[in-house]
Amino acid sequence: MGKFFDVILLILILLSVLFVMIESVKGLSETTYNILYIGEWVITIFFTFEYIARILTVKKPTNYIFSFYGIIDFLSTIPLYLSFILVGSNVLITVRALRLLRVFRILKITRYIGEANKLKKALNDSRPKILVFLFAVLIVAVISGTLMYLIEGEESGFNSIPVSVYWCIVTLTTVGFGDIAPVTPLGQFLATVIMILGYGIIAVPTGIVSAEYAAKKDYVHVNTQSCRNCGAQRHRDDAKFCHKCGEDLHVENTKES
Amino acid sequence: MGKFFDVILLILILLSVLFVMIESVKGLSETTYNILYIGEWVITIFFTFEYIARILTVKKPTNYIFSFYGIIDFLSTIPLYLSFILVGSNVLITVRALRLLRVFRILKITRYIGEANKLKKALNDSRPKILVFLFAVLIVAVISGTLMYLIEGEESGFNSIPVSVYWCIVTLTTVGFGDIAPVTPLGQFLATVIMILGYGIIAVPTGIVSAEYAAKKDYVHVNTQSCRNCGAQRHRDDAKFCHKCGEDLHVENTKES
Amino acid sequence: MGKFFDVILLILILLSVLFVMIESVKGLSETTYNILYIGEWVITIFFTFEYIARILTVKKPTNYIFSFYGIIDFLSTIPLYLSFILVGSNVLITVRALRLLRVFRILKITRYIGEANKLKKALNDSRPKILVFLFAVLIVAVISGTLMYLIEGEESGFNSIPVSVYWCIVTLTTVGFGDIAPVTPLGQFLATVIMILGYGIIAVPTGIVSAEYAAKKDYVHVNTQSCRNCGAQRHRDDAKFCHKCGEDLHVENTKES
Amino acid sequence: MGKFFDVILLILILLSVLFVMIESVKGLSETTYNILYIGEWVITIFFTFEYIARILTVKKPTNYIFSFYGIIDFLSTIPLYLSFILVGSNVLITVRALRLLRVFRILKITRYIGEANKLKKALNDSRPKILVFLFAVLIVAVISGTLMYLIEGEESGFNSIPVSVYWCIVTLTTVGFGDIAPVTPLGQFLATVIMILGYGIIAVPTGIVSAEYAAKKDYVHVNTQSCRNCGAQRHRDDAKFCHKCGEDLHVENTKES
Repeated sequence: MGKFFDVILLILILLSVLFVMIESVKGLSETTYNILYIGEWVITIFFTFEYIARILTVKKPTNYIFSFYGIIDFLSTIPLYLSFILVGSNVLITVRALRLLRVFRILKITRYIGEANKLKKALNDSRPKILVFLFAVLIVAVISGTLMYLIEGEESGFNSIPVSVYWCIVTLTTVGFGDIAPVTPLGQFLATVIMILGYGIIAVPTGIVSAEYAAKKDYVHVNTQSCRNCGAQRHRDDAKFCHKCGEDLHVENTKES
Repeated sequence: MGKFFDVILLILILLSVLFVMIESVKGLSETTYNILYIGEWVITIFFTFEYIARILTVKKPTNYIFSFYGIIDFLSTIPLYLSFILVGSNVLITVRALRLLRVFRILKITRYIGEANKLKKALNDSRPKILVFLFAVLIVAVISGTLMYLIEGEESGFNSIPVSVYWCIVTLTTVGFGDIAPVTPLGQFLATVIMILGYGIIAVPTGIVSAEYAAKKDYVHVNTQSCRNCGAQRHRDDAKFCHKCGEDLHVENTKES
Repeated sequence: MGKFFDVILLILILLSVLFVMIESVKGLSETTYNILYIGEWVITIFFTFEYIARILTVKKPTNYIFSFYGIIDFLSTIPLYLSFILVGSNVLITVRALRLLRVFRILKITRYIGEANKLKKALNDSRPKILVFLFAVLIVAVISGTLMYLIEGEESGFNSIPVSVYWCIVTLTTVGFGDIAPVTPLGQFLATVIMILGYGIIAVPTGIVSAEYAAKKDYVHVNTQSCRNCGAQRHRDDAKFCHKCGEDLHVENTKES
Repeated sequence: MGKFFDVILLILILLSVLFVMIESVKGLSETTYNILYIGEWVITIFFTFEYIARILTVKKPTNYIFSFYGIIDFLSTIPLYLSFILVGSNVLITVRALRLLRVFRILKITRYIGEANKLKKALNDSRPKILVFLFAVLIVAVISGTLMYLIEGEESGFNSIPVSVYWCIVTLTTVGFGDIAPVTPLGQFLATVIMILGYGIIAVPTGIVSAEYAAKKDYVHVNTQSCRNCGAQRHRDDAKFCHKCGEDLHVENTKES
């Protein structure tokens, strides 16, 4: 029964996001629009019931309401009601933005992803390295962006340093839109250096996640604590006795602190 | 004999796919077209014989016919016969699509790839992680696509949310066609975030497959213990006797400590 | 107190770089420009004090002055003073380049990145492999660039071998601006080969950094042996005593066999 | 002395390749051209002496002449002489191609790369997996190229299946020139699938090389041979005695065969 409800919910979430996306397409017929509108109401009512049911069943409703999923669930129901209230007023653009908020319903899906926790943990563990990596990208982009602005100038589309930095990130990440491209030999040479740098930098996050994943499999964390009796190092983090001489590691630890 | 037949078949498959591809090129001479047509008939007849032979030689023909390779083999022979029957009628576009079906003959090649099974197994084992990864890409693309549609609007080519989501996937995967590109500062900033995100996300599947492969490899842990008798090193961790001279490793170990 | 000073400095560095970037944008109002100018002076004076303080507090000032950070700190303070002196003269372009030097202030940030050292070490250790990789990219780019120049010629934008080599690096690194693209069938075929090569070569630096990281990590090999006394598993390979209860692992092992 | 000669040679190789590249640039002055011509003669004479010296010093000259480096060394000297002979004749295009052959001199550099052997070995060991990977790319590109040709047609630039397959490889490898881009919704959807596929496939070669590198560090190859006496499996490939009971593995092997 609970499983059946889950599948219905999953389909409704995807349908709802699809409706928002289709609605934005130009030149839809009146009929299509009406179907989308009715479908939208059905989904919103369903989500409203789900939201109320969740509040009623959890022990501490306030905990749920201000949790990540509580906010997502609220944002999934409110837009249509609000747009209904605001109809007639001329705050059309706000309403439009509001209606598009419904797209965040896709975040409801994360509830159904079991593996996500593992992934999140792996990413969390390598956060300091990821930050270093982002700083490296930023520093390279700012400096080479400024140089490209000096070298290429406005004729090639490098209008200002921010645009130039934007172009550098486009190049470093190997996206390469081509809306802006260097034309002077010196600019092309610098671009070459940036590209090879970006091509190499990509190895860093990959290597990090790779090693993190591999490490999670067959290894345990060790520390640099040395045994009081025999001096052996690199014990398991949770080791209570020395793996070499059987000395009680815990006693030593307590003394140290 | 069987080997010789295999090589012929392999060449015919590749030739056949090449013929389909060449046929689509505009401005071919009458002679070229005739050669392609004759070649096509020769290959089709050969494949027909192969198909019939396979049905006759397998024990349970129905098993083969409805298997993956059975369907591929059938699709590899039927198009030309069908197009022959339908000539004269005006369902030209259907015939054209049908003739292009022959391109699926390339799937026949998978029969000759031994390593494919290992690869398929590695991919299969990491399927839940790959699904999570795809969901992550989808969620990021839908949300940032909607934001880009709001920010950039139709002047920059972000005509509708589906197009905007398409652009986000083009950017996330670092393909970057450049047919659509952000022009407003805010849009360019969001694009920067998406690019760096995509540049980082690529690490995830790579890390997964990497770790999966590393774990799957036919290796065992070895240590640097050297044999008392012959001096051989790098024995298996749980080795009790030297792999080179048969000396009892355990005795030696006890003595050392 | 020292921590508070560090945070202020960090914010000033980022603000200062932001100011340089904003200054380059066309069409700013007079007011904005004045705010930027005042902000610039405040930051420069702050950096001047920091620079003098550092010289006064270190034991060997010359060591600091000619160190990496000493030069960065000097370059962070001098531009505004120099531009002040040179105002009125007509070496405007030099002044502009000089003012942009301030962007190198971002390098001051590296002081705050602790993880950077590990990363730098990992990169340093794999330098010979990275050099080989760069040589490989260069050799492929020079040879295929020359071939593309011969095949495509000037009609497609392959004006000279240097431009052609530039295009090859754009393609090899999977950036693909699209400002130059092959149009002849033979050129497109060669481009295909270059792309797949580039797609494959990217695996090399990634694999190197990956393996380097995995090797550098603070892990040791563990085995699945379980302790006779408490049942704890995953001991270090060379463990002689249980890390949890101190039981002699070695005795147990001998009994088992 | 030998070291000094090596450095001179290395510089001459790089200079020579640079000369070929510069020569192709349009609009060079007469003086520049003359300098390049004289430089070219100096380098060619130097390489001629090197080639003759190598032939005279090696024991079996024919072995050297038909080796990889022998051919490279020959191709590095001959173009200028040949172009000298052919001057006056009107086979200008052949001469031009011939002169560009000099660019292959860059391959002479590989002699100085020590690490290259390791890299070559790692690539060699993972060759079957790389072939499978290339086949996978080819199959995906041929099938999706045909589908894109059917869906998009000639209006979007998908003129023929070969061009369409070329576009698919551009997209799969995440290069994305943007000279051809899908415009129909269905085409854009298929493009999305191809991009995500390409984004995922890139993980495969990376994972392979990664695992290959990691494996080369601390592990040895084991096989599935089982011991006659105790049945233990996964011995080291070069093991002569069972690591568990000390039984002679070799005898058993001989019997089996």
